[in-house]
Amino acid sequence: MIDELQAHLDGRWAAVRNTARELLDDPRLEPALGTLDEQRARTFDRLRLLAEAGVSRLGFPKQYGGLDDLGGSITGFEMLALGDLSLLVKAGVQFGLFGGAILHLGTSPHRERYLEDVMSVALPGCFAMTETGHGSDVAALRTTATYDAAAQEFVITTPDDDARKDYIGNAARDGRAAVVFAQLITGGETQGVHAFVVPIRRSDGSPADGVRIEDCGPKAGLNGVDNGRLWFDGVRIPRENLLNRYGDVAPDGTYSTPIENPTRRFFTMLGTLIQGRVSVAGGAASATKVALAIAVRYAEVRRQFGAPGRDGEIVLLDYLAHQRRLLPALARTYALHFAQGGLVGALHDDFADDDRRRPLEARAAAIKAATTWHATATIQACREACGGAGYLTENQFARLKADTDVFTTFEGDNTVLLQLVGKELLGAYRSQFGELDWLGTIRFVAEQATATVIEHTAAHRIIQRLLDAAPGPDADLRDRAWHVELFEWRERHLLDTVARRLRRAADSDDPFATFNATQDHLLCAARAHADRLLLEAFLAGVDSAPDGTKPLLDGVCDLFVLSTVEAERAWFIEHGRLSTQRSKAVITQVDALCAELRPHASTLVDGFGIPDACITAPIART
Amino acid sequence: MIDELQAHLDGRWAAVRNTARELLDDPRLEPALGTLDEQRARTFDRLRLLAEAGVSRLGFPKQYGGLDDLGGSITGFEMLALGDLSLLVKAGVQFGLFGGAILHLGTSPHRERYLEDVMSVALPGCFAMTETGHGSDVAALRTTATYDAAAQEFVITTPDDDARKDYIGNAARDGRAAVVFAQLITGGETQGVHAFVVPIRRSDGSPADGVRIEDCGPKAGLNGVDNGRLWFDGVRIPRENLLNRYGDVAPDGTYSTPIENPTRRFFTMLGTLIQGRVSVAGGAASATKVALAIAVRYAEVRRQFGAPGRDGEIVLLDYLAHQRRLLPALARTYALHFAQGGLVGALHDDFADDDRRRPLEARAAAIKAATTWHATATIQACREACGGAGYLTENQFARLKADTDVFTTFEGDNTVLLQLVGKELLGAYRSQFGELDWLGTIRFVAEQATATVIEHTAAHRIIQRLLDAAPGPDADLRDRAWHVELFEWRERHLLDTVARRLRRAADSDDPFATFNATQDHLLCAARAHADRLLLEAFLAGVDSAPDGTKPLLDGVCDLFVLSTVEAERAWFIEHGRLSTQRSKAVITQVDALCAELRPHASTLVDGFGIPDACITAPIART
Repeated sequence: MIDELQAHLDGRWAAVRNTARELLDDPRLEPALGTLDEQRARTFDRLRLLAEAGVSRLGFPKQYGGLDDLGGSITGFEMLALGDLSLLVKAGVQFGLFGGAILHLGTSPHRERYLEDVMSVALPGCFAMTETGHGSDVAALRTTATYDAAAQEFVITTPDDDARKDYIGNAARDGRAAVVFAQLITGGETQGVHAFVVPIRRSDGSPADGVRIEDCGPKAGLNGVDNGRLWFDGVRIPRENLLNRYGDVAPDGTYSTPIENPTRRFFTMLGTLIQGRVSVAGGAASATKVALAIAVRYAEVRRQFGAPGRDGEIVLLDYLAHQRRLLPALARTYALHFAQGGLVGALHDDFADDDRRRPLEARAAAIKAATTWHATATIQACREACGGAGYLTENQFARLKADTDVFTTFEGDNTVLLQLVGKELLGAYRSQFGELDWLGTIRFVAEQATATVIEHTAAHRIIQRLLDAAPGPDADLRDRAWHVELFEWRERHLLDTVARRLRRAADSDDPFATFNATQDHLLCAARAHADRLLLEAFLAGVDSAPDGTKPLLDGVCDLFVLSTVEAERAWFIEHGRLSTQRSKAVITQVDALCAELRPHASTLVDGFGIPDACITAPIART
Repeated sequence: MIDELQAHLDGRWAAVRNTARELLDDPRLEPALGTLDEQRARTFDRLRLLAEAGVSRLGFPKQYGGLDDLGGSITGFEMLALGDLSLLVKAGVQFGLFGGAILHLGTSPHRERYLEDVMSVALPGCFAMTETGHGSDVAALRTTATYDAAAQEFVITTPDDDARKDYIGNAARDGRAAVVFAQLITGGETQGVHAFVVPIRRSDGSPADGVRIEDCGPKAGLNGVDNGRLWFDGVRIPRENLLNRYGDVAPDGTYSTPIENPTRRFFTMLGTLIQGRVSVAGGAASATKVALAIAVRYAEVRRQFGAPGRDGEIVLLDYLAHQRRLLPALARTYALHFAQGGLVGALHDDFADDDRRRPLEARAAAIKAATTWHATATIQACREACGGAGYLTENQFARLKADTDVFTTFEGDNTVLLQLVGKELLGAYRSQFGELDWLGTIRFVAEQATATVIEHTAAHRIIQRLLDAAPGPDADLRDRAWHVELFEWRERHLLDTVARRLRRAADSDDPFATFNATQDHLLCAARAHADRLLLEAFLAGVDSAPDGTKPLLDGVCDLFVLSTVEAERAWFIEHGRLSTQRSKAVITQVDALCAELRPHASTLVDGFGIPDACITAPIART
């Protein structure tokens, strides 16, 4: 059963997962301890080990020495996250962000010149986008790259401290170059944010001329990663260092671009970097699985308090309150796993096609926000469920908590991401993603007469069949057709009503006030969208499961659905979709599902196929 | 306004608070950095500084060199928590737990022999209760203390690894003695758990004969505290080392006690140690205040994204979503502050009177659980609200998060505490607190015919007046009478219904199954009780406030109430206490209150009177 379950969860990139499992068993990859310097040094050494093992080549094209396996690359990253997260993030910065920017924003000469050295770590690099003053609103970055036609060079300048590059991984210690995002200025005109390859250190490790580097110092976690700050004081780089796929400057300073609209151009550039966001979601899911595995194993053996009519003391997982802490979270982790698998598959298949890739951006944003918040909440719940033992570093939660905490922030702050999702759902996406500010969005929505269209991302045939069944309001609580209809209705209703509010306010004197008043409503819609994506992915996951695992997965899906309905039941009642009687029945059904799944809790965490080397907590080995 | 507000919040022990503020400005008390050993060494040194400053004397009787100011002692502890939490916990172990056990469980000879050395730290000590196998169910501890009448000694023995003392603060490095909780056996009979003073180290620091000490190693936080494990292999201590206030052994081995019932005796002993639990709540509240102060100050200056119709970029705290992250949490922090103040005052006044102290135990448990969970959630929300900057160690959240994480676990696991609260609310408390196992509780409840009685802990006169007003279901949402009635009704209804379920199941074949099926229901009742305590305390806090601060505090109280109702609105609708229309109006009203209080956010955090030395985060100083 466990093998069958694991094989199903492993899915399309099972081979990559198994290779990663072997790699994770290598003692040389164990988490680095010690001082900040020691952790950083060992993380850098291990980054080279990953490169030697070929992990770095998965996501790059064959013609540059890669393996042309984008899905494998993201899946491998997800698996690495079962181990040390500093190493994971260091690898993500080097291969995913630095390498990814050169691959996607550059052209052949850049790829030929840099990619081999990126994959081998001969050229450690940074992704220098975020500035102290601008983390979320990156179109407003203030670093400048001014073209000097006489010298055929760009001059990179940090105008003030607010525009220094900040939180840049690989910058404080190891980076030799950086892809720097800056406002391109030529002939006195600003053309918006573009990316440039800028050397930041000499071969002896000292800062390059005009570059100032500062250490961000210790962080809550991920201390194997050397985050730093960068200032550029008129740093000159050759014209060719502009990553010129989406905008180029001729020797005489003439600017040219395949995408005339500057906002659309910038968001197209960002869109090619989607891999980072998807990878963070996968990493967060893996950390969550490790935490759940430890907490469930401990809860299976740890006893506390005797009970009348029972011999001995009660095992923690036999308590309803304990089941409720762990099992709904476990069920949602399954939903997220299937959603991530579907997203990675779609990205792998459709990456090269702009029109097909673009809708994946919002899906990636929704899943990233859902998974990383789930990680924060679940790892915390697992720590508490293990009591004082959970607080000891040896039992892993300390690192899991500290290292994953920033996942809700980096690669897109979750709240900002959900707003992007909301905008897309309002219909503004299809043609104009990213182009509309709030005023534009409000006007766009005001002009649309049509109601929201729900586009299914998976399990289309099944969903249609279920919707055709048209379950009534008294359907059995475990009727899947009712689940699907309920989740869809919630999303559609939230969107329709927020659109109506925006339409009413289209002529407001204060568009910000309008946006602000509807902000929470829009975020709710985006969360409802994420839940619906998860349900669809879970349906597809159950449908394709081996027969022996189907009944169990069906029960887990029920728990995911009904614990979600339970959490949102106020909204469903308020909108006439649940009677109060039925709402109470949902609570009782969640209790019943916890009891039903409790005997399978160990199987469910074993199905993740976490290598023994990644579960070092003594409390999980009793 | 800020001064007036601070004076009101400072309350009865304002002088102690001001002394603590001066102390916190002493650079020698700054948090310890460096290796584990360095952190521990500096924390121990700082513990002596606290002793020199006289902080340790507050809570002890004058006749032993103390200052006889229990309330001042707990308030001082709360204030210290604005600074380094390792130092706080180290002090709590030494003065509160070790010293408190000697004071409350021992008799005059013990107090005379030990207390001066406890207060001066000449005798660093441990509180060795928790065992690896028993953390919550401490009546089932398995360490034994067997009386040897011939030698007039107790023999302390750890039967196996499961019974080793675990997570014991001060054990790994500094403790010279420990108050050890063990099953007292004399004349072949076990008399239940008692406390014994056991030397654990020689003057040269090496372990005493028969004592084995192991280091628990690094923890998620609080690494200035040296937690360790202790094994006792037939360690002999004089008969007089039994802390014999609640049970004594004569030279010939005869056992005597003022409390015949062994369960009641043990829970009376535990009850005298209530100070620890109350102190942890105060500490958690202080850490929450620091986090909120940083997040609010940052949100007042940090800008992100421009908006149509507005100049420049928008300040974070102007976004509704950001207000909703911080302001309801700030309002609840005010409620907890007033509840803590009321509890400390009651404890100070009533400690010596067993009958008056006993009801405070459940109140302390409810407030401890509420405050520490609130701390975990709020500090996390504040970190996220500060984005990547919040993740840097220099901005304080890393330590605040890591150090407070275990507060939900130590001094009573929150879930276990809420069960105790639930039992008390069921009426089992008054005469028999702690004596009833679940079977006993179920039977006890079954025999009670009467409905639940709500006992007001504060603001009695005001509450009665409000209840007499009998607001209808259509009362204004900010009608305080409606608030009070709603909170009381929720608690009473949850209790009445859980009692009914227990009554129905009184003759069940499987009492554990009955208990388990109602566990979540009971925990809900305990949470409702905590919310009602907070509301009462807030009412008293508004009532006694200077006129200039009343309107503001009234608004904060509204936000506390309505954000609580919003979070629990599903339950209120399900139980016919909110129409769906009114429920939606509550959400809108919370939005409106956020907008109303937003201009006062800085005033509200400044009112906490946190010394500048405790807010070192650069992002809070911009």
